[in-house]
Amino acid sequence: MKRNLSAWPCSVARSLELVGDAWSALILRDAFHGLRRFDDFHNSLGLARNTLSDRLNKLVEGGLLSRRPYQDNPPRNEYVLTEKGKDFFPVLAALLAWGDRWLDGGDGAPVTLHHKAHLHPLRVSMVCGDCGESVGSDDVEFRLGPGYPDDPVEPARDIRSRLAPAAITRAAVG
Amino acid sequence: MKRNLSAWPCSVARSLELVGDAWSALILRDAFHGLRRFDDFHNSLGLARNTLSDRLNKLVEGGLLSRRPYQDNPPRNEYVLTEKGKDFFPVLAALLAWGDRWLDGGDGAPVTLHHKAHLHPLRVSMVCGDCGESVGSDDVEFRLGPGYPDDPVEPARDIRSRLAPAAITRAAVG
Repeated sequence: MKRNLSAWPCSVARSLELVGDAWSALILRDAFHGLRRFDDFHNSLGLARNTLSDRLNKLVEGGLLSRRPYQDNPPRNEYVLTEKGKDFFPVLAALLAWGDRWLDGGDGAPVTLHHKAHLHPLRVSMVCGDCGESVGSDDVEFRLGPGYPDDPVEPARDIRSRLAPAAITRAAVG
Repeated sequence: MKRNLSAWPCSVARSLELVGDAWSALILRDAFHGLRRFDDFHNSLGLARNTLSDRLNKLVEGGLLSRRPYQDNPPRNEYVLTEKGKDFFPVLAALLAWGDRWLDGGDGAPVTLHHKAHLHPLRVSMVCGDCGESVGSDDVEFRLGPGYPDDPVEPARDIRSRLAPAAITRAAVG
């Protein structure tokens, strides 16, 4: 079964259609580390060249990386994070923080983030952008949003029954 | 090639070994929506039953879900988020926010988050837990952490050359 999550009325599913495999996410990690060239990604991740090529193409098509020529003979491209790709950073930072908390085997974080402007270690925290409070799953209610279709294509995946009604501020959310 | 990312000295890779496929992440999404039973996950996601069973087992083995009997005859289990699973929420919230920003097709978010305590829509934001400032990839430096092995098993995946030295506050980070 070839799934197509991009048509689901869910931003998590749509995002996962683009980056929902481990190699894609690790390529982005490497791009945030400053890597740009095919051979550098290949050496770093040790995956098959055709798999790497496939994932890079998908990230370019998805608009997270842009392909730029850096050499003419033979022609070679490098892969640079776009604005859309850079904006993916909070996802990887949250994944990193979770792994540091739960999968460090007691040895501490293998790699730490450092807040350049303030010269201190960075502990990322997810907050409500309006009130600034830290938020966890228990603080949150899922509501019907403006982009949920009136007539979802696949009824089995219609999740409206488990969502709270749209907020009266619905128009402001879109 | 069967990859094993759990041994890499990288919390992103280790996390992706547990949840680095789209179905696992969507099962967690559904769990945050309140789903607990095999048939409910199956109806929601529309994936093959053996694939669902495999991913649920992996999430139980990884400690993100716990299996609890809810019926004796025939025996049936439900799947409940553990503390480790609940702590994964920021990753999905960041993924949701990114998809809302880049993949809404102009229609607005299909599903919105609502901050229960304050009765307002929730725009999640990633900040530095120490200084409270919003952080993006350009604000961050990657440094060698206390958990990075002195002698990584796979030299090709030794990423020390691209990391800044450990901070002098290194001991405090672990």
